[in-house]
Amino acid sequence: MLSELKKIVFEANLLLPKYKMVTFTWGNVSGIDREKGLVVIKPSGVDYEKMKAEDMVVVDLDGTVVEGNYNPSSDTDTHIELYKACPDIGGIVHTHSRYATSWAQACKDIPALGTTHADDFYGSIPCTRAMKENEIAGSYEKETGKVIIETFKDRQLDMMAVPGVLVYSHGPFAWEKDPMKAVKKAVILEEIAFMAYHTTTLSGKTSFMQQELLDKHYLRKHGANAYYGQKK
Amino acid sequence: MLSELKKIVFEANLLLPKYKMVTFTWGNVSGIDREKGLVVIKPSGVDYEKMKAEDMVVVDLDGTVVEGNYNPSSDTDTHIELYKACPDIGGIVHTHSRYATSWAQACKDIPALGTTHADDFYGSIPCTRAMKENEIAGSYEKETGKVIIETFKDRQLDMMAVPGVLVYSHGPFAWEKDPMKAVKKAVILEEIAFMAYHTTTLSGKTSFMQQELLDKHYLRKHGANAYYGQKK
Amino acid sequence: MLSELKKIVFEANLLLPKYKMVTFTWGNVSGIDREKGLVVIKPSGVDYEKMKAEDMVVVDLDGTVVEGNYNPSSDTDTHIELYKACPDIGGIVHTHSRYATSWAQACKDIPALGTTHADDFYGSIPCTRAMKENEIAGSYEKETGKVIIETFKDRQLDMMAVPGVLVYSHGPFAWEKDPMKAVKKAVILEEIAFMAYHTTTLSGKTSFMQQELLDKHYLRKHGANAYYGQKK
Amino acid sequence: MLSELKKIVFEANLLLPKYKMVTFTWGNVSGIDREKGLVVIKPSGVDYEKMKAEDMVVVDLDGTVVEGNYNPSSDTDTHIELYKACPDIGGIVHTHSRYATSWAQACKDIPALGTTHADDFYGSIPCTRAMKENEIAGSYEKETGKVIIETFKDRQLDMMAVPGVLVYSHGPFAWEKDPMKAVKKAVILEEIAFMAYHTTTLSGKTSFMQQELLDKHYLRKHGANAYYGQKK
Repeated sequence: MLSELKKIVFEANLLLPKYKMVTFTWGNVSGIDREKGLVVIKPSGVDYEKMKAEDMVVVDLDGTVVEGNYNPSSDTDTHIELYKACPDIGGIVHTHSRYATSWAQACKDIPALGTTHADDFYGSIPCTRAMKENEIAGSYEKETGKVIIETFKDRQLDMMAVPGVLVYSHGPFAWEKDPMKAVKKAVILEEIAFMAYHTTTLSGKTSFMQQELLDKHYLRKHGANAYYGQKK
Repeated sequence: MLSELKKIVFEANLLLPKYKMVTFTWGNVSGIDREKGLVVIKPSGVDYEKMKAEDMVVVDLDGTVVEGNYNPSSDTDTHIELYKACPDIGGIVHTHSRYATSWAQACKDIPALGTTHADDFYGSIPCTRAMKENEIAGSYEKETGKVIIETFKDRQLDMMAVPGVLVYSHGPFAWEKDPMKAVKKAVILEEIAFMAYHTTTLSGKTSFMQQELLDKHYLRKHGANAYYGQKK
Repeated sequence: MLSELKKIVFEANLLLPKYKMVTFTWGNVSGIDREKGLVVIKPSGVDYEKMKAEDMVVVDLDGTVVEGNYNPSSDTDTHIELYKACPDIGGIVHTHSRYATSWAQACKDIPALGTTHADDFYGSIPCTRAMKENEIAGSYEKETGKVIIETFKDRQLDMMAVPGVLVYSHGPFAWEKDPMKAVKKAVILEEIAFMAYHTTTLSGKTSFMQQELLDKHYLRKHGANAYYGQKK
Repeated sequence: MLSELKKIVFEANLLLPKYKMVTFTWGNVSGIDREKGLVVIKPSGVDYEKMKAEDMVVVDLDGTVVEGNYNPSSDTDTHIELYKACPDIGGIVHTHSRYATSWAQACKDIPALGTTHADDFYGSIPCTRAMKENEIAGSYEKETGKVIIETFKDRQLDMMAVPGVLVYSHGPFAWEKDPMKAVKKAVILEEIAFMAYHTTTLSGKTSFMQQELLDKHYLRKHGANAYYGQKK
């Protein structure tokens, strides 16, 4: 079942240790088959070294396991909320990557401070509000997804133009059109978090970069007039 | 004698350089056979590359060498005090890992600032008080163990829920049910120390995370209602 | 066409991932054949692992592609402005290396704080002014080159004595007599940026080192009376 | 000539890139044959990958090359001053290792903040005063050695108990009984510099550790009553 997507999700998961994005099993990648309405995700707490493509778990959009010998990632319900909120998302990554998590623990947005940021994220990477006591006590992982979506709605952000978020006191999620691209965005988010940390501690600077420069770099790489890279 | 435990303790020691937790010989792992009341520990000042499983030293709970061609780790008496104070401890790790040691040198607890911390340590990782002149002049390593235990008693902390400590002006100890798990906790303690350093220098933040979120994450992984990972 | 220069530029580009100067495709090296007035540069957005020497793109000094199956680096016009402004430049490197980019995002010069800096850069590494709205909206990459040249003219700096710059809110460029030496300068710029970050955050120090010591170290390595290294 | 010492000095030099202590050729190790009064040192500006044992240069205590196809390290005269000042020194290392150099650029002593420091350096690692204009203009490298010795004399420090120094606006030197041990001390100095940086930026702390704890750890490893490691 979904053997091609399982293979992609499996390989995308293996990129996390390759890019030093995870310690032990602290990360997970999923992908969605939009036609079938099924999500393929890493099993919970299984070592990357021992994991096989066929160990990936298939769940439906209610979070029910449709196929798989393992429990799915404990963050599965968060992934599902994001897939339901934004039909363009094809792959999602959650990690506790070091610098992005440090920003999440500081409960601060990562401000757009330079073109490295602007090339991939159209504006600040938002940090959610703190979750409420009843949200934590309830369907916690599902509520985590809801608070992410609330953040994008309240701030009127396009989830595909700002394809990542920091969950308050927790860590980053990133997403893209497919699982491989989502991993790439997660790596870039960590890189941006590294640079923004050093820029901020060096200068105390928190002011946003020029809007025109942000526009220029984002649009150099995205949309109808992009001219970075090779023609497709 | 205790050849199985020696092998485990040996392999657990080798994980320290693998996870970049030690420079030269600055770290040691021990394990205990509770039935026999014997502790197996790394020999003092022996290179990890040359060390063999049979070089591990066996000591009793008075610190007397029962078997071994080498002197045991100079920190042996600290390990023994911890084993005697808490019967659930099966393995102990001491390192001078870089970020945890920086916190110990700053003489500060590592505050629980996010879910990465909450997943493994139920609250701040305490830093002991400074040792007194007579404690340093006396049985120094044994007194180091005693001041750790005093810290947990005074703060009414459960040693298995907060399985690590910072010794004032010195460095971290971590422990768990067995030596391999203790190494994992030491690696996590270092990871937490890294993130807490960056969170604190970024924001000046020292306030504790929400108690409900700490509870949620700790209990998602520990105790009767844990649901992270696979069923055992 | 220019197969020898293509090989050098190709190999210089491969040094960028080797020295951990780039994430994904975030960097490019070019070289110039001054007699022919042609520049060889990395193709845009092509992975370092898949790239071959023959994929290097040849452009003239108007930025027109003379040979190549790919689009040239999107930063090509910046390179060309620098080649036109300074006839001694034989190779140019652009990266988003982490510490140098953090300084660029902080919109600060890297002050000369020690002999490591003085050995290769004769004084502060300047950060350009912010680009104006019309410059960003116009021939952006060409204007980026122009603002670099303006910075050196306004401050009366010799481009070969200070062979690098930070572009405001963007990142570093470095150059030298040939592409291989330019990569070396880019690596040194990153190393200097690392040290200057830590010196500054440690001490709040922003004062320049002694002028005599700067002179001594720079002239120990450069010019008629240099005595570092072996006779050529 | 001195082929055994050349081999040791060569291998000690190769440890510098192995321990990530140097970028390019920014470091050198020497050793001395006290009976013959001859120093063996790395050639200047030669790549570590290409270097052979027989390329090591032999100089006498006046700095005259006695044997060798290459120029000796440009820092040779500094090494010689140290050998002449302290007869117990058998090997010397100079690097621009990143954290120690950041402290040297901040023109600050590295305070003894914990037992990692105390295990190998009996008190703060001093930073020299700035060199005077005439010292820089004169026999600069020799004067560098003299200002190091002045620092130890003025502060009444034992060069073997504090086997390292920071040269103001420059970088670290370390020494020991032989070249291999000197490299080890240089690595430890860098490790200590890393921790002291993070301790200081975390807490603003600059107060020295307890004197008793410094004594305890230093004397646990050094002198007649040492008990760390194995009996020799």
